[in-house]
Amino acid sequence: MFTSGQYRVLRTISTLGPVSRTQLVEITGLSKATMSALTRELLDRNILCERELVFGQGRPSILLGLNAVSVCFAGVSMQSDPSIILLTDLLGEIIAHKEFARASDPETCIENIERGIRELVAQAGDRAGPLGGVGIAIPGFVARDRRLCYRSVVLEWRNVDIVTPLEKRLGVPVFAENDANALIQGEHLFGIMRDCPDFSMIIVGDGGIGCAHIVDGKLHRGFQGGAGEISHTTVVWPDGRETNRPCSCGKRGCLDTVSSLRAIRSMAQQKGLPTTPLELERQAREGNADALHILHTAGGAMGMAVAQLVQLFDPSQVVVLLDPPFREGVFGAVLRQTMETHIMPRPDWETTLDLRETLGTGWATGAAGIATRQFLFSE
Amino acid sequence: MFTSGQYRVLRTISTLGPVSRTQLVEITGLSKATMSALTRELLDRNILCERELVFGQGRPSILLGLNAVSVCFAGVSMQSDPSIILLTDLLGEIIAHKEFARASDPETCIENIERGIRELVAQAGDRAGPLGGVGIAIPGFVARDRRLCYRSVVLEWRNVDIVTPLEKRLGVPVFAENDANALIQGEHLFGIMRDCPDFSMIIVGDGGIGCAHIVDGKLHRGFQGGAGEISHTTVVWPDGRETNRPCSCGKRGCLDTVSSLRAIRSMAQQKGLPTTPLELERQAREGNADALHILHTAGGAMGMAVAQLVQLFDPSQVVVLLDPPFREGVFGAVLRQTMETHIMPRPDWETTLDLRETLGTGWATGAAGIATRQFLFSE
Repeated sequence: MFTSGQYRVLRTISTLGPVSRTQLVEITGLSKATMSALTRELLDRNILCERELVFGQGRPSILLGLNAVSVCFAGVSMQSDPSIILLTDLLGEIIAHKEFARASDPETCIENIERGIRELVAQAGDRAGPLGGVGIAIPGFVARDRRLCYRSVVLEWRNVDIVTPLEKRLGVPVFAENDANALIQGEHLFGIMRDCPDFSMIIVGDGGIGCAHIVDGKLHRGFQGGAGEISHTTVVWPDGRETNRPCSCGKRGCLDTVSSLRAIRSMAQQKGLPTTPLELERQAREGNADALHILHTAGGAMGMAVAQLVQLFDPSQVVVLLDPPFREGVFGAVLRQTMETHIMPRPDWETTLDLRETLGTGWATGAAGIATRQFLFSE
Repeated sequence: MFTSGQYRVLRTISTLGPVSRTQLVEITGLSKATMSALTRELLDRNILCERELVFGQGRPSILLGLNAVSVCFAGVSMQSDPSIILLTDLLGEIIAHKEFARASDPETCIENIERGIRELVAQAGDRAGPLGGVGIAIPGFVARDRRLCYRSVVLEWRNVDIVTPLEKRLGVPVFAENDANALIQGEHLFGIMRDCPDFSMIIVGDGGIGCAHIVDGKLHRGFQGGAGEISHTTVVWPDGRETNRPCSCGKRGCLDTVSSLRAIRSMAQQKGLPTTPLELERQAREGNADALHILHTAGGAMGMAVAQLVQLFDPSQVVVLLDPPFREGVFGAVLRQTMETHIMPRPDWETTLDLRETLGTGWATGAAGIATRQFLFSE
């Protein structure tokens, strides 16, 4: 789409926000003449726009920023049912969104996505630029090529490619991505973790426990896209303990069997307790031993898994997205305490643990962010 | 040292081995004229040499390779006592080596290293080019700047910088690095894992259990150089179990307390068993229940930690360096079996677990490799 010089300009502006031509020359080390040509091309293509005057010590200078409405991107999240489609502008702001019924059948799924995107584009009208690309967040393993879904237990997919047909129908680049990988890229590009070059994110959501890593400013996918499968790390060990539950993945003692919303609900149900995070935390606060045990088990196992992550990879931050009652309650407290207990005392720094609220549209904006990132950075 | 164009040529030749000018043009995308100038400069500086004629379909062409003896590098390993200093050529071959007494006192340590390097350079004579740089493998946390050692329990160091004084005395760039990080970079540049872009390495050595990661062809240091602290991941959990031993780091249940050579020796001693890997494995093979228990505990905990690593990061390979009797005995078998038990069944691939022998000089050649890498690639 762009030349390597143009990509350098776009990356700089995208990272720093609006900057002057003089600053661009200083930051990129390119010559004034080259920079003048590059920015003119990008202004002509409507991707950049001139933003505001700054009256500094010298002559007033014009800032160049991304032109938010020059192009739009569609983000699809199949993480939940109903699924979500939304349109974002070049800065990641949501222009329009809608829900659609999640279909396991790939053909229906492709049709739903195509129809949804066309409806949103029509609905947005002048508020959106032309469609620049589509990202799709899929709960499952997605190949490095961001095309083939190797396997999704939730969707019952094995080696399914919905990307190629969608690219043919829509005529723009389409990217599939594991849902947690999509979410973390969105947060890194536009969201709460903007510009943090090294962090891990864990999501305790309805679809299970997701996890992804940003390393040196890029998504760390792992050899086969399997990085971040924290949900199936063994946290109940050694074998034979009462709590060593069988997991749907085939092994035993996985984090998913004690810390996922599904597992917590099921444990609560067995004890005749209410199953919502709010009610369960309330029971624990009132001293109900079973509720306390469940939340200690869930939070403790999660804290243990986070500690392993920190010991092995030393991210600067770990962000855990949780329901607010868990974040503020026993679950969150035990999580934090257990993590700290199981990290080696280190000389002069600590890994920040940041408990935050899950964002309903985060998966879909993250997916849109992948298409945006590809458009802006070619990566 | 070099221009960015020259670095591109050096990187290409270092990765692929000797190549022709035509191939260099094809691979780098630079023009014939530019490539001709770049290679002439590098030939003039004696870093490249013309290697051999290839009689292909067209005209015979000359291959350009690295000139092994154009420059040499010193590698120091303080991982063991006595410590090791060696000189390597540009291709990582050892030219000369010697041992020296490890000193905790930084001043003595600096003097020992300076004297050792000068002795080796004199001894090597014409077989070595001028000294191009020095790498030092330190058992401890080393800052990202590869200068300051935050802390070494073994050396009893806190915030010690031996790099700056050595640079002044020797007049060449000096780099300090955590020992496992040094080892993995050496194996990646010259050794068994040459050109594998994604792998993790675990070393069960006399100095403890080391671990390091290569991600996308580069060392993954973590936020504060703390990545790879597998030795202090909790593997005996939850609290209160008989085997949940206190660790020198301050917490309990660390891998170091059950799988390190020191821990194995101590467990064997308590049971009146021989403490060498060879003898302990022999006892286990002959059915001694205590020996079996110790090796199962050690290998099992290590397998568990490897499984966590694979679940969280999905490297293409995990290489574990072990004493040969452990590699071929119960320790290795239990390690493999436990790892496989605790990795989630995945659709179409497996992570290769490669058990290999520890190399006595690997730490020091790895350290030299860091200086080589800096020289060749400026990274």
